[in-house]
Amino acid sequence: MNQLPPEVSQLIDAAILEDQTFNDPTSQVLIPTDVEGKGMLRAKANGILAGIDVAKAVFHRVDNDLDFQSLMSDGDILSPGSDIALVNGSAGSILRAERIALNFLQRMSGIASDTNAYVNAVSGYDARIVDTRKTVPGHRYLDKYAVRMGGGFNHRMNLADGILIKDNHIEALRSQELGLKEVVQKALAGASHTIKVEVEVESIEALREALEAGADIIMLDNMDVDQMRQAMHIAKGKVIVEASGGINLETVRSVAETGVDLISIGGLTHSTSALDISLDLEFS
Amino acid sequence: MNQLPPEVSQLIDAAILEDQTFNDPTSQVLIPTDVEGKGMLRAKANGILAGIDVAKAVFHRVDNDLDFQSLMSDGDILSPGSDIALVNGSAGSILRAERIALNFLQRMSGIASDTNAYVNAVSGYDARIVDTRKTVPGHRYLDKYAVRMGGGFNHRMNLADGILIKDNHIEALRSQELGLKEVVQKALAGASHTIKVEVEVESIEALREALEAGADIIMLDNMDVDQMRQAMHIAKGKVIVEASGGINLETVRSVAETGVDLISIGGLTHSTSALDISLDLEFS
Amino acid sequence: MNQLPPEVSQLIDAAILEDQTFNDPTSQVLIPTDVEGKGMLRAKANGILAGIDVAKAVFHRVDNDLDFQSLMSDGDILSPGSDIALVNGSAGSILRAERIALNFLQRMSGIASDTNAYVNAVSGYDARIVDTRKTVPGHRYLDKYAVRMGGGFNHRMNLADGILIKDNHIEALRSQELGLKEVVQKALAGASHTIKVEVEVESIEALREALEAGADIIMLDNMDVDQMRQAMHIAKGKVIVEASGGINLETVRSVAETGVDLISIGGLTHSTSALDISLDLEFS
Amino acid sequence: MNQLPPEVSQLIDAAILEDQTFNDPTSQVLIPTDVEGKGMLRAKANGILAGIDVAKAVFHRVDNDLDFQSLMSDGDILSPGSDIALVNGSAGSILRAERIALNFLQRMSGIASDTNAYVNAVSGYDARIVDTRKTVPGHRYLDKYAVRMGGGFNHRMNLADGILIKDNHIEALRSQELGLKEVVQKALAGASHTIKVEVEVESIEALREALEAGADIIMLDNMDVDQMRQAMHIAKGKVIVEASGGINLETVRSVAETGVDLISIGGLTHSTSALDISLDLEFS
Amino acid sequence: MNQLPPEVSQLIDAAILEDQTFNDPTSQVLIPTDVEGKGMLRAKANGILAGIDVAKAVFHRVDNDLDFQSLMSDGDILSPGSDIALVNGSAGSILRAERIALNFLQRMSGIASDTNAYVNAVSGYDARIVDTRKTVPGHRYLDKYAVRMGGGFNHRMNLADGILIKDNHIEALRSQELGLKEVVQKALAGASHTIKVEVEVESIEALREALEAGADIIMLDNMDVDQMRQAMHIAKGKVIVEASGGINLETVRSVAETGVDLISIGGLTHSTSALDISLDLEFS
Amino acid sequence: MNQLPPEVSQLIDAAILEDQTFNDPTSQVLIPTDVEGKGMLRAKANGILAGIDVAKAVFHRVDNDLDFQSLMSDGDILSPGSDIALVNGSAGSILRAERIALNFLQRMSGIASDTNAYVNAVSGYDARIVDTRKTVPGHRYLDKYAVRMGGGFNHRMNLADGILIKDNHIEALRSQELGLKEVVQKALAGASHTIKVEVEVESIEALREALEAGADIIMLDNMDVDQMRQAMHIAKGKVIVEASGGINLETVRSVAETGVDLISIGGLTHSTSALDISLDLEFS
Repeated sequence: MNQLPPEVSQLIDAAILEDQTFNDPTSQVLIPTDVEGKGMLRAKANGILAGIDVAKAVFHRVDNDLDFQSLMSDGDILSPGSDIALVNGSAGSILRAERIALNFLQRMSGIASDTNAYVNAVSGYDARIVDTRKTVPGHRYLDKYAVRMGGGFNHRMNLADGILIKDNHIEALRSQELGLKEVVQKALAGASHTIKVEVEVESIEALREALEAGADIIMLDNMDVDQMRQAMHIAKGKVIVEASGGINLETVRSVAETGVDLISIGGLTHSTSALDISLDLEFS
Repeated sequence: MNQLPPEVSQLIDAAILEDQTFNDPTSQVLIPTDVEGKGMLRAKANGILAGIDVAKAVFHRVDNDLDFQSLMSDGDILSPGSDIALVNGSAGSILRAERIALNFLQRMSGIASDTNAYVNAVSGYDARIVDTRKTVPGHRYLDKYAVRMGGGFNHRMNLADGILIKDNHIEALRSQELGLKEVVQKALAGASHTIKVEVEVESIEALREALEAGADIIMLDNMDVDQMRQAMHIAKGKVIVEASGGINLETVRSVAETGVDLISIGGLTHSTSALDISLDLEFS
Repeated sequence: MNQLPPEVSQLIDAAILEDQTFNDPTSQVLIPTDVEGKGMLRAKANGILAGIDVAKAVFHRVDNDLDFQSLMSDGDILSPGSDIALVNGSAGSILRAERIALNFLQRMSGIASDTNAYVNAVSGYDARIVDTRKTVPGHRYLDKYAVRMGGGFNHRMNLADGILIKDNHIEALRSQELGLKEVVQKALAGASHTIKVEVEVESIEALREALEAGADIIMLDNMDVDQMRQAMHIAKGKVIVEASGGINLETVRSVAETGVDLISIGGLTHSTSALDISLDLEFS
Repeated sequence: MNQLPPEVSQLIDAAILEDQTFNDPTSQVLIPTDVEGKGMLRAKANGILAGIDVAKAVFHRVDNDLDFQSLMSDGDILSPGSDIALVNGSAGSILRAERIALNFLQRMSGIASDTNAYVNAVSGYDARIVDTRKTVPGHRYLDKYAVRMGGGFNHRMNLADGILIKDNHIEALRSQELGLKEVVQKALAGASHTIKVEVEVESIEALREALEAGADIIMLDNMDVDQMRQAMHIAKGKVIVEASGGINLETVRSVAETGVDLISIGGLTHSTSALDISLDLEFS
Repeated sequence: MNQLPPEVSQLIDAAILEDQTFNDPTSQVLIPTDVEGKGMLRAKANGILAGIDVAKAVFHRVDNDLDFQSLMSDGDILSPGSDIALVNGSAGSILRAERIALNFLQRMSGIASDTNAYVNAVSGYDARIVDTRKTVPGHRYLDKYAVRMGGGFNHRMNLADGILIKDNHIEALRSQELGLKEVVQKALAGASHTIKVEVEVESIEALREALEAGADIIMLDNMDVDQMRQAMHIAKGKVIVEASGGINLETVRSVAETGVDLISIGGLTHSTSALDISLDLEFS
Repeated sequence: MNQLPPEVSQLIDAAILEDQTFNDPTSQVLIPTDVEGKGMLRAKANGILAGIDVAKAVFHRVDNDLDFQSLMSDGDILSPGSDIALVNGSAGSILRAERIALNFLQRMSGIASDTNAYVNAVSGYDARIVDTRKTVPGHRYLDKYAVRMGGGFNHRMNLADGILIKDNHIEALRSQELGLKEVVQKALAGASHTIKVEVEVESIEALREALEAGADIIMLDNMDVDQMRQAMHIAKGKVIVEASGGINLETVRSVAETGVDLISIGGLTHSTSALDISLDLEFS
């Protein structure tokens, strides 16, 4: 499939507008329109590639006479010097589009690479690394796609995807004199049969209540590894369990060892490190 | 001024669409429409606030009956527990809007905080911390605004703002048998009189050529501190000098000591860490 | 909550553009700008109201000085003569906006009313009436909202909401030499833990395979009531069962009697009958 | 001509966004990207085809490598089993796009088919079947196009197309002490010379006034056949006459017999029945 | 009515984006946010005002705390020094919005003023001054509105408004062996009964053919005054006649004398002169 | 480079929407879909061509099967009869697109031609003809592009491009008790190092202050030629000087003689005369 979702096409247009790509005096004044170049997108660090089709779409949105050849695919492993893609054609067009293409590619590959580091850290365990809704506004599709390219799984794409009862919801209903168990039951009764009900719990007691109420998924929120182990002792096999909150690359393996099914990492998308990728332009 | 630029309004709408804010089964099923709550946006880390008006706009886009009171202003210093803003009204509306408001606020405050750390690190020197065009697509305005809130300055907003001759441009013109000096002269001759011409140099020799050609700004690209000191010995007072490439919080003060005018840090916007801010919902 | 989702605001704008509301020669030429009128939105048939906030938004998008008072709420029962809402102000503005406001209101109330007829037809049984993705393009949010107002429940909002394995998917995988059971298992293994897996079956044999494979929901596709009864004999209590295909107001109660959990009716949104509502304009 | 109007392109994008076409876990998880299929769009009922180019555009918007071959043209007669179009290529892409393509095609063909039934019902008479502005918001172009494909004619595309003085306008001006005749004269005097003036009348007396005033078109509103016959006795040959209100397939021929020029049917577009068309996917 | 059409709201947003109103370093750096000013929009030439609501909307889109008081209305006569509107509030906001507000106001008032000059030039005759479709792309609504404010009338708003058979259409059908008369008859037979058929003729002979065929409107294309007089001798009272092509302020009165009904002037909108209006900012 | 900026694509779509290109009854009714024609875009006046790619994009947006061959390039000299481009294909498509293509082409060529007349008028002098921000809303990119095609240079593309201190800014700061010199110094201190500071002066005294303060560019506002000569006596070689205000084709050469570097002409874009270009359709 070689088309991008409408929101990504719009984002590329927005990026071109905000960067004034077609009003670039540097290339207008300096580069004669008949100068052709060969640009190589090249990794300068270890990681996982994501966003090659977005980069391609950026170059083509600026100049659809550019010839873009992907040398690698999303999900491939990058190391310093890896040749990712070749873009040939008008040097002025390549130079105008370069920064925006890299801004997409570096962010997406950064997310894929970070995700992959977590996936590797839990290898041998069943736990899946999942993302959150803490994505950069306007980038939900791309951020979540990059997580998949890194070997992670997606949690809810958006609010409509499922019921997730968080502390603030429970607090709101406590003011209505409903306990956790009743809240979960209300959710199960009122929700569409086609979605699942997940509950965030902060204690073993709350976990028991949620289990009794019949929650489909339970999120252990900010528990330490001991608490999680205790929780899994109770919940294992009865319900899907997600660990969430304050987990990092150092601690993630110990969390996986507890037997949880899902480990969600907000930082994959809210605190991404761009992966270093450059465009090297050559002239024959 | 209490309006946001059109591209930010559109970004808020895009965020609401991608998160399906108005199709949230959790609040639809659980929260009776007449439950009112008080939400406090509260810092959980040290940093600088940025994005309060964007957060406010998100809440109002979801429900313009919500009462939003800013308790702090952009640029203010945050510490764990700082009360940032109070939002009162329909609990369901607050819960629907929470994640998007935080996604904006945490990113923008993260950028402001990182910038501020660099600004503090060079205190006492004249060097300004500036951003780059390595922003997240669609967030140029917000990213650059956040840099200013952190005490930084903006480099080019977009390509139209000035001429910046980078290695790839020089390479392209070398294929036309033009040397650096001729390239700079061509730029000065052809450009609008209202913009400046900046050149990226990687050696002292290139610096001398650029100076002779009359460049307005010279960027020292990936030089070490010794090279920069040597460069400033030559260029000080004759031209605006920008240091760029591989500078971090540990090295930035030594770079400032060389006397450069500008220090640009791509990581401020391409590798932002979200600042931890939460919404605490209360019911009276 | 008094805001509409961005896609609905855009739809209202699109409706105004396509109807050239602001280029109406009839009111321009005939109605002096100082003529004020009172318009009453009034039902002319039995049914259920839906879309009052959209109608209000249309009038305000045309002229935000119009005073719009809702006399009824979405979900209320309408009979011929029911006064729905009063809109006071510039007669020219009311006349320009009338048709678009009614086009929204009549369609949404039509959907709610049809849904409600099905809901009433199965009263006493547990079966829920649910919609499908057979909505009018651009109206997904409004169509599904109207179904809820009529007492129905929503099936998937969109493709991302769950896995639904239909005949064409099974056919595609049969070409890969996978049987139904393997297909379901593949879906369960590969899907996010947060969504459910539904399978469409056309025979009792397929039902058994799907059950064994562990499907969360089974859709009985185009079965007659006898087959459904047989299916429920097997599946009751083990899985959520949805009846789908060719069910109408005459047959729906007999379907509900079989004990299925969900009855989906595509016609609610793909073959809606507008409910007759008019605007009566008066001048004091 | 193979392009669609901008509002239709936007509607296709909106449909893809609301259906989350590019976030479809069913095809992501189940269908290997190299599986190719052949999809046949096939009628399952009698009717008239409309919307083939829109369906094609939907498939191409999702994946422009799909090969779409139209086997029939808009306006062609469909019967159960008619092969409409063949779409070959990535099975995953075809499955993602299927529902949206059908939603457009079924609605448009439904309108064309209903229109055609009316056109056939009045065959032998001069009366034209025309549509109204009671279209689904955002679908004005497509709805009116489908009417033409069914053999009908279009009434006003939008408010700018002509002056149509309805009961509410007359009521507004009665409050200004203007009678029907004066209203029509005011319209004729003030309007652009390039548009026509139509008046809605509910009585023979009003008809006479409108005629005297020089109206270009007269709409007989909600008259019974006897009244219409009487009206045509007076108006025939002097003015274009449109019958409107409460006309259905049973009564339309008797209306045509009265000699009216135009018969407008709001239900063609406000209460459309989708025509049953399916996509049958095959694998060789 | 105080709302603007969606296309005008979008045009204001586009203008703000292209002018980077919210990234204005001049006011950011110079004007403290608490400085308040009073801006007076003031005419510096004779003419007719048009666009006051658009100017107001621009100021409010930038800062909705600005207080905008209209002192005059669209259609009013301006002379040098006329006070048009007062805008009070943040000086920075006023300065940011100034140029865009003036760009709209000067163009629209320029159109209204030019139109009015033509209207005055034909005073005493029945001929109406009408515009054409030669408007600036994106400004159709505003350009045609301004023509009305200047006392002119609108020709077709867009292609859908009527049939206008021009030389190129006739040429196309000549290749099909159809003469002018047959072309007009084909148009009358095939068109919606609700629109008129206009024909462009370049000779008296063509005029006679068009008359015989029953055209509703005849456009005399690029005829000199003698030819027009001869044409009106034949056509007067039988058909609406429009004079078009190469008419200017010097010749328009002699054209009106021939008795034509409409005189269309493309230059009103394709070669507008901006009317000189300034913003004078004062500080108390 | 053969792509247009996003804002131009959007403007083309807006133009098609407002002209209802796809709802054209004239071509629908009259032109059989299989009639092919050859359209020649042909100049009817002397001038400079600009906008050929925009015209091409309009034709292709309406029908991408049209074959468009450019016979000339933007910037080329036109005389009456010059063949600009040939468009072959469906006659109906060509006729639908004609007006919009010409509206763009005539305006842009008009700007280029007017600019070129100024450029020629100052030939032999160093003064550059520059544009202003007085462009038609939504047309900033196209208007400024056309100026370059006519041999002119661009002033600021938008507010972000530089600091320009105008009379209203100075007035605002006078209320803060800052003199001109202090204002300029404040601007230089606070601005990004990457942009220039320009000041508008109305007297020789103000010029001296601005020079002392270190302004990068000085605009002589509405000075007569004698004052300008005096100003250049002082400022020549020390600063870039722009002449602005009330300069026309008769006076521009005498302004250039004073030695100013830039002469800005608002009328190039705010009071453009469309260049006469027609489409001649032929049938073989």
